Amino acid sequence: LRVPEELRTFLLKEKAFFIATHVNPEGDALGSSIALAMALESIGKEVLLYDRDPVPHSYRFLPGHEKFKNYYSPSLVSRIPLILLDCNEIERAGLADLKIPCSAVIDHHETLRAFGDIKWIMPHAAATGMMVYWLIKEIEVPLTRDMAINIYTAIANDTGTFRYSNTSSEVLRICAELIDSGVPPGMVSECLYETWSAGRFKLMTDVFQTLDVRGDVAMIHATEEMFRRTGTSASDTENFSNFPRMINEIRISVFFRKIKDGWKISLRSKGDANVAEIAALFNGGGHRNAAGYKITADDINSAKDELIKALTEKGLLHSRQ
Amino acid sequence: LRVPEELRTFLLKEKAFFIATHVNPEGDALGSSIALAMALESIGKEVLLYDRDPVPHSYRFLPGHEKFKNYYSPSLVSRIPLILLDCNEIERAGLADLKIPCSAVIDHHETLRAFGDIKWIMPHAAATGMMVYWLIKEIEVPLTRDMAINIYTAIANDTGTFRYSNTSSEVLRICAELIDSGVPPGMVSECLYETWSAGRFKLMTDVFQTLDVRGDVAMIHATEEMFRRTGTSASDTENFSNFPRMINEIRISVFFRKIKDGWKISLRSKGDANVAEIAALFNGGGHRNAAGYKITADDINSAKDELIKALTEKGLLHSRQ
Repeated sequence: LRVPEELRTFLLKEKAFFIATHVNPEGDALGSSIALAMALESIGKEVLLYDRDPVPHSYRFLPGHEKFKNYYSPSLVSRIPLILLDCNEIERAGLADLKIPCSAVIDHHETLRAFGDIKWIMPHAAATGMMVYWLIKEIEVPLTRDMAINIYTAIANDTGTFRYSNTSSEVLRICAELIDSGVPPGMVSECLYETWSAGRFKLMTDVFQTLDVRGDVAMIHATEEMFRRTGTSASDTENFSNFPRMINEIRISVFFRKIKDGWKISLRSKGDANVAEIAALFNGGGHRNAAGYKITADDINSAKDELIKALTEKGLLHSRQ
Repeated sequence: LRVPEELRTFLLKEKAFFIATHVNPEGDALGSSIALAMALESIGKEVLLYDRDPVPHSYRFLPGHEKFKNYYSPSLVSRIPLILLDCNEIERAGLADLKIPCSAVIDHHETLRAFGDIKWIMPHAAATGMMVYWLIKEIEVPLTRDMAINIYTAIANDTGTFRYSNTSSEVLRICAELIDSGVPPGMVSECLYETWSAGRFKLMTDVFQTLDVRGDVAMIHATEEMFRRTGTSASDTENFSNFPRMINEIRISVFFRKIKDGWKISLRSKGDANVAEIAALFNGGGHRNAAGYKITADDINSAKDELIKALTEKGLLHSRQ
């Protein structure tokens, strides 16, 4: 049994839940939250599904995405147990001042925090979607096609559609079952990877031209001018940080995105290089192979210099022979 | 039973085989051929593995790739049965004038040809690697880690690592078994997608800048000058044709690569658009969603014009609203 007995009891006992996930939600946050909401509703629970930010357009193919609200009633929520998904601190959900009777956390992120009366945190789970799948089996809710599409998308999102090293045989067996439950894998991939605007494609081309390779670290960046010229915005840069990983000798790829008073930095690594450690130095967070932080540097060069210094100090930048 | 009895008998009866696959081999051609060679060797058969072209550097992670020879002895081969894999006409293997005693074809391509004494052609198989997996089970050869890596790579290659619509639950279940047999999925994906040279990344950036959208068709091209400037060659453009598919409204994406006396054109489509039909008009071939041909046009504009004319006539180009 993977699901803690305490969590199972909590879900079956309570009558209503306030389900929240992190700000700027992606496939795993959205898919796992919607699937859990559907499962709980199917056994007669009332569910409020909340994210501070709207569901990005590219994820509006998810059945049930319209359940998400971007507001909540503090007085109502103060009487309903919270389930926090795909993150483990309430600040990540933009809910810092929330008053709640009790809370459960379901998450697969490494950075452990103190929040949550019931904590189910599995850093080895490929996605929070895997945990919701196990949970649905455990509470014996029949898996519908709509739940399956949400869970499949969650897992696809966090395994790079089965490309990352967290792709276990269990990941593929669960996703095989989800396909048998009605998921069209080609459609999900099209929605995840092939719904770019032409402007986004042009933005990517511009961003790629900024490629700056230092040893086994590759950096690219997006300026406000690029966003203006291509008619794009921050959400159009999702996944950009992964692209320089394509280059053979690169172990760490970095994407700098200009924000109001500085830069938002996304780090991706191959193999052992732990970029969560680097992000933590700048008060950021994430996983071993995917992490991020923000800094208030003026120009791109000082933003890069600070990172290069940290990478060098941690022994994560290697000169090429 | 999916494997024809005739083929099974043939494989078990004959003592030696000449296994050949198509020129410019990719993951499915290489992986399925090597796995079949290993399986036959494990039951005491002698195998000659042939491709006209060398195994591309990016596939030299495949265990057993060194079995491939780029030459053969006509007198020896004239006495050994041929197995043609991942193509169904002998010209595709660069073997037009070969004298052979008998032949079997194992392939999943749609364009049926007359070649082969024994023909096992399954257009619905996601990859020739799937067929080799079934064959190995059928002749009861124990699946080794080395065979598994080759078959996994073959299937990953032809399903876009489980992104295309040919990703069935059976594809995922077989690949789950292959992972249990020792395949490291992250390593295979890194080898397939993250072994680009920095020059190749720069070539891609140059090529993307040529983006030319007409209705729901997107075209990009690579000139000889781009290859020179980035220190790259034709093999560095593998998969480029897929990228414009990322754009939402695009149903067909096209990559033109300059060759000696014209252009080599690769077509990729989403959904129902049958690009094999277009390629056939120019004496090319392929699948419904991935096909190609060559033309002897002088400049890129006349090459594009001919294609646009054909697409328009076949009703495959739609203006955007």
